[in-house]
Amino acid sequence: MATGRSQTVVDRIIAEAGEVRRKISRNGKPRMKMPIRSLSNVKYNPKPGYFKLQGKSKIRTLTVNTVKAFAQTLKMLAMSKELIDADKNSTKREAYYQAYNWGEAAFGGQEESDAVMDDVEAMLGVNREKLHFRADEHGGEVAGALAVIDKDRRTGRRVNIDCTAFGSGAYSVPSVVEDLGFETDADFILAIETKGMFERLVEENFFGKFNCILVSMGGVPSRACRRFIRRLSDKKKLPVYVFTDGDPYGYYNIYRTLKVGSGNAAHLNEFFCVPRAVFLGVTPDDIVDYKLPSHSLKEVDIKRANDALKNDPFIQHYKVWQKSINRMLEMGVRVEQQALAKHGLDFVAQKYLPEKLKKRKFLP
Amino acid sequence: MATGRSQTVVDRIIAEAGEVRRKISRNGKPRMKMPIRSLSNVKYNPKPGYFKLQGKSKIRTLTVNTVKAFAQTLKMLAMSKELIDADKNSTKREAYYQAYNWGEAAFGGQEESDAVMDDVEAMLGVNREKLHFRADEHGGEVAGALAVIDKDRRTGRRVNIDCTAFGSGAYSVPSVVEDLGFETDADFILAIETKGMFERLVEENFFGKFNCILVSMGGVPSRACRRFIRRLSDKKKLPVYVFTDGDPYGYYNIYRTLKVGSGNAAHLNEFFCVPRAVFLGVTPDDIVDYKLPSHSLKEVDIKRANDALKNDPFIQHYKVWQKSINRMLEMGVRVEQQALAKHGLDFVAQKYLPEKLKKRKFLP
Repeated sequence: MATGRSQTVVDRIIAEAGEVRRKISRNGKPRMKMPIRSLSNVKYNPKPGYFKLQGKSKIRTLTVNTVKAFAQTLKMLAMSKELIDADKNSTKREAYYQAYNWGEAAFGGQEESDAVMDDVEAMLGVNREKLHFRADEHGGEVAGALAVIDKDRRTGRRVNIDCTAFGSGAYSVPSVVEDLGFETDADFILAIETKGMFERLVEENFFGKFNCILVSMGGVPSRACRRFIRRLSDKKKLPVYVFTDGDPYGYYNIYRTLKVGSGNAAHLNEFFCVPRAVFLGVTPDDIVDYKLPSHSLKEVDIKRANDALKNDPFIQHYKVWQKSINRMLEMGVRVEQQALAKHGLDFVAQKYLPEKLKKRKFLP
Repeated sequence: MATGRSQTVVDRIIAEAGEVRRKISRNGKPRMKMPIRSLSNVKYNPKPGYFKLQGKSKIRTLTVNTVKAFAQTLKMLAMSKELIDADKNSTKREAYYQAYNWGEAAFGGQEESDAVMDDVEAMLGVNREKLHFRADEHGGEVAGALAVIDKDRRTGRRVNIDCTAFGSGAYSVPSVVEDLGFETDADFILAIETKGMFERLVEENFFGKFNCILVSMGGVPSRACRRFIRRLSDKKKLPVYVFTDGDPYGYYNIYRTLKVGSGNAAHLNEFFCVPRAVFLGVTPDDIVDYKLPSHSLKEVDIKRANDALKNDPFIQHYKVWQKSINRMLEMGVRVEQQALAKHGLDFVAQKYLPEKLKKRKFLP
């Protein structure tokens, strides 16, 4: 599936390698150019909707000092091409072990091979899943009004995965989602912080009543989970509502990362952010409006909140987020999704979420 | 489904509460009896195959000092009965928040409500999932020759979840598996430490070639994951082969916990252990036999290994495990599942696992 997309990547690999080869055959010094990946080279602009790299880049020229890194980068490009040709994916760890056979270009440790992989990713301007490298991580869970289209490894035939038909279970998102297709008539995606709340909403038949797709992020969403929500919401023009605990961790580490990305992987935000995501709750106002049990802010919460007010370009862009955070700091408390259970297990599905959705009281 | 089983639990709740009521109405001092849950009250015997509680128990008699804990225990029993009657499940966290409405019997924090839940569980001699309390945790992933039978929350109708039909994705095991049914003609279950290796085997079409069921444990298996493997392997009389990294964490924290349980939850091992599990690899011998890249043991590895030799009743029972661990300590190295990728991504599926399965070189 989507071989067209991978083919483009293969073409780019061939072009990069060909350029190096041409330089060498003319006795020139081959070089590779890649953007600098750090917060100093990033800015937030609501129009593209994510932390965007500015122009700074570094050049790796072949010299005595760079010969090993240069060789590793080329070998990594070659490995990626082989994977794409064979329609296989390699974890970062497997890539590191395969490089044991690279002789003098072998890595000293996985941190070295990861860094080269990041370089290759940034150089080609694609996420590494398109290079057929995958993370060894949990991709989130899905239940609701969605059919995922994938293919059967045994037969190559198309499979249609009906996410309404998992009973109390769910569809587990694979680590590479680039080639998945989607069929849905859902009205929105609800991205949920905890598996506990996800299972609550499955049990309450929430997606049956509110024609929607539930995604359990399991804390800070992994690359696969973010990319899944991004691709699904883009392809099907679906609104994305985010439902986390009401604390700085929920607001920044989870929601902000999902929506605009993070600083230290700025070259990737373009592919992993979900600019159309909006924050549904739990908000500081909800604590009062719904008489929810709350807990005192921990020191780490206060530190995180002040950091965000001071340094986070996303928060600095939105007055309403600054207001919410200041409100939270004044109240001195945080609140959990599951606190809604004080009013009965079905309160979240019968009253809280329907009211929030109806009033469209979202934060940007 | 399986209402019969839950009914038994309800009967036991009614009996316990009835006994308390009878005592009170005769002006007697009601009391509740529960086993002591600690390593000092546990032993390993290969016949039942798990760390088994010995007879010691504690008695909670209603006095001025115990009145709050006594009330909480009764309220927790009542909450469980309500959940079973409504066919709902509550996370431990939700249970804690629901108890906000218990007036003077409300909990000071979740650690208090968790302790009472543990007491109730031990008192009735059932796992808390049967009381309709669930953990907020990941239950593992499944792909392969299995249909899981569950029911649709919207219609109450039976759903048949075909675990061969998820493409590159998987079935995500719910946190409560008590009522799931199974249909399979698989020859064995392969329980795998990492999601990365699980996806490798899915990609290599391993379950298509070796009629089996793949389970990704994602590190130390959660309660749901252990219970799922236990129920499936019991119901269908399936061998369980365990495939972890070759280090003390893989041997004890993962394999030993899956097979015989753990010390600090001894009252639960009966339900969560998988006595028929055997260890497939990666073993210290494999490092030599398959020329695998390895890494030096860390200090924590050495400590864990020595602890196991000295204190672990399971290891002390099996000479062959002691031999393996001593071998590992002599060699001074650990090895990862993914190290097999040195010989090519498909080596694990084409050569390593088939050879191990054919030679039946398992550790007990």
